[in-house]
Amino acid sequence: MDSSISKAPLKIPFEGPPIVLHRPQIPQNTGNIARLCVGIRSPLIITGRAGFNLDASSVRRAGLDHWSDLTFHHFLRFKDFLKAFPKRRIVAVTKTGSDSALTFEWQEGDIPVFGSETQGLSPTFLRYTQHSVYIPMSGPVRSLNLSNAVAVVAYTYVARLYGSNARHLETEYPRHAFIRRS
Amino acid sequence: MDSSISKAPLKIPFEGPPIVLHRPQIPQNTGNIARLCVGIRSPLIITGRAGFNLDASSVRRAGLDHWSDLTFHHFLRFKDFLKAFPKRRIVAVTKTGSDSALTFEWQEGDIPVFGSETQGLSPTFLRYTQHSVYIPMSGPVRSLNLSNAVAVVAYTYVARLYGSNARHLETEYPRHAFIRRS
Repeated sequence: MDSSISKAPLKIPFEGPPIVLHRPQIPQNTGNIARLCVGIRSPLIITGRAGFNLDASSVRRAGLDHWSDLTFHHFLRFKDFLKAFPKRRIVAVTKTGSDSALTFEWQEGDIPVFGSETQGLSPTFLRYTQHSVYIPMSGPVRSLNLSNAVAVVAYTYVARLYGSNARHLETEYPRHAFIRRS
Repeated sequence: MDSSISKAPLKIPFEGPPIVLHRPQIPQNTGNIARLCVGIRSPLIITGRAGFNLDASSVRRAGLDHWSDLTFHHFLRFKDFLKAFPKRRIVAVTKTGSDSALTFEWQEGDIPVFGSETQGLSPTFLRYTQHSVYIPMSGPVRSLNLSNAVAVVAYTYVARLYGSNARHLETEYPRHAFIRRS
């Protein structure tokens, strides 16, 4: 057990993990991930060069609607990201990972890192990370779409840390719904 | 407990739940979902009219790469889908759902149903379904991208039913990986 993990009480409304995309190439994927991050209060962190411009007007043109609500960081060098987030567990998500992302013991403060759509995370890169997980697949597909992979990992983290305490914001989603069925 | 639920032993390699998309509108989302479905051996079922052509050459033109590996059904009427899959629990995924998708007691044979990107599932439609779940969100976003929502629900089902038995196919993902770190 890493003693550096924060023991502070979990925050309600719930907060997803910071999401790191290393050299993402497809703006639509980053757009879907930005929407997801805003939805679960996760910061989005891009490291390395992205395959598209990251200034505000470019992301707006690319249809990344929720960018203005996003907590966003960009580090050209992955090492600078590591310096900015010291004492955090960095968890590489890669098909060569050691543990299943579904049963990994996610802890508050963990930061999952995702490679690019075309290259994934290189063996060299993986030397930077203490932990690695894979998303299990039983069919003839090499990987998920990047935004889907992020969604699976982020919500697995939320489920593990918050369980049934992860709810909709009441203000956003009135629960006096038309569904009444027992 | 519904006595109609199958008690057969779970299959290894693991199988995700059948995924129903009702009137999907955006081919890229259905493409990402098809890739996901092939990856976890889930059948894909479209009900109602899609916003794009479903013949093989059209889906190929739309870049839906994994279509040929997919177990796919189309029912123009949702009622005909229900007749074809009798005695199954139909679980509507909607922001007005009764239970969190993350903590719902998913059982083998459950079939989650997702509405369109633009309309979701209507109150009228929800009369067809016995169960409904929501994907929790704590930030100012009304919903996830459709393919992300499917990914979250499908892998929550896989995690609940298979846990650490959900692994990569050895043949697809040689585990003699370059990562050696304890």
